[in-house]
Amino acid sequence: MAIRYPNGRQYTPKNKTVKNESKKKSDVLAKNKLTFSNRGKSLEDEIDEANMFYLQRGTAVIHKKPVPVQIVKVAYPSRSAAVIQEAYFRTPSTTDYNGVYNGYYIDFDAKETKNKTSFPLQNVHEHQVTHMRAATKQQGICFLLVCFSTLERFFVLPFDVLDSAWQAMEKGARKSIPLNVFEEQAIEITESYAPRLDYLKAVDQLLSAL
Amino acid sequence: MAIRYPNGRQYTPKNKTVKNESKKKSDVLAKNKLTFSNRGKSLEDEIDEANMFYLQRGTAVIHKKPVPVQIVKVAYPSRSAAVIQEAYFRTPSTTDYNGVYNGYYIDFDAKETKNKTSFPLQNVHEHQVTHMRAATKQQGICFLLVCFSTLERFFVLPFDVLDSAWQAMEKGARKSIPLNVFEEQAIEITESYAPRLDYLKAVDQLLSAL
Repeated sequence: MAIRYPNGRQYTPKNKTVKNESKKKSDVLAKNKLTFSNRGKSLEDEIDEANMFYLQRGTAVIHKKPVPVQIVKVAYPSRSAAVIQEAYFRTPSTTDYNGVYNGYYIDFDAKETKNKTSFPLQNVHEHQVTHMRAATKQQGICFLLVCFSTLERFFVLPFDVLDSAWQAMEKGARKSIPLNVFEEQAIEITESYAPRLDYLKAVDQLLSAL
Repeated sequence: MAIRYPNGRQYTPKNKTVKNESKKKSDVLAKNKLTFSNRGKSLEDEIDEANMFYLQRGTAVIHKKPVPVQIVKVAYPSRSAAVIQEAYFRTPSTTDYNGVYNGYYIDFDAKETKNKTSFPLQNVHEHQVTHMRAATKQQGICFLLVCFSTLERFFVLPFDVLDSAWQAMEKGARKSIPLNVFEEQAIEITESYAPRLDYLKAVDQLLSAL
């Protein structure tokens, strides 16, 4: 029996009208085939998406810190929100992301490079190293989330590996970390669906090695 | 023998010229007598000072989060820093302070009231409670740092005490937490010199009760 709306028009379930939807969906899945390609999303968006997922599932509470600005002038137009009319960017003193995961303090920064063979240390700022060194001393879990965008490979680079390379650089050694060091000493983030950049899975491996 | 400057003027050590300094100092000390009075500092300044002290001593790494703003328009005047010309305040989704202390994730907000008998819950925002509830589930150490400014008394109010009062309020109970609840279930911050608001001492008590 056909179901009808009160106005007499027949009700047609939506999944019947869009005949090719399931085929289309499988095409998209095949195209993406468990890779990080064709996303059109920035690394920051991917991390935000993962953090939102973790928060909703009760897996972890990790947030991006706001960009620090020095506010100089604020106007209060009547009947509307306050408008900041003059402000300046300040240098952050920490990394961009921190939070708590199953009792662990998590602290990291996200870095992206188009380089295919190594990660240039000029992507990292002195204050970030100093901060992660201090947080590591407090038993925090610190790392860099590094994206080799051309290779579409993502790694969780433990802070101690970064710190060794950083200190070596300060003594005159190379100014980058080769990809093979990542392959040996970092943890590659394997592709996932929900969230797509499931970086805590890599952090779990980091934690199990503690 | 009198010591003289190259111009012939006699050198007089400063501690001789200010005859009454030591007396004055003791007066000041007596007046302040290990209390939080006469500081002229905001609660936020006191916490910043404590956090700076903790960071320098390697005790903890705790920072205030920047105020979140939505940046709309940025100008780049030649040869000078970028100027934010239009931006709006966003609602934060977390508390103001977080960090790591001896392996513990620390998360709190600072609140001040002139009220002498109770702490009005209207000082607390829903999103702060939601956030601390989530962080507590991840085994984070969450609390409010409450200043009764008229009484010059400071308390570390554990989140579970706040949450009980909050949930009771939602069911129609009182909209404030009486001072005697603080005296019984919160930890009073005892006065100190370095840092003056040594709130981690109170947190230690919180941790020892876990």
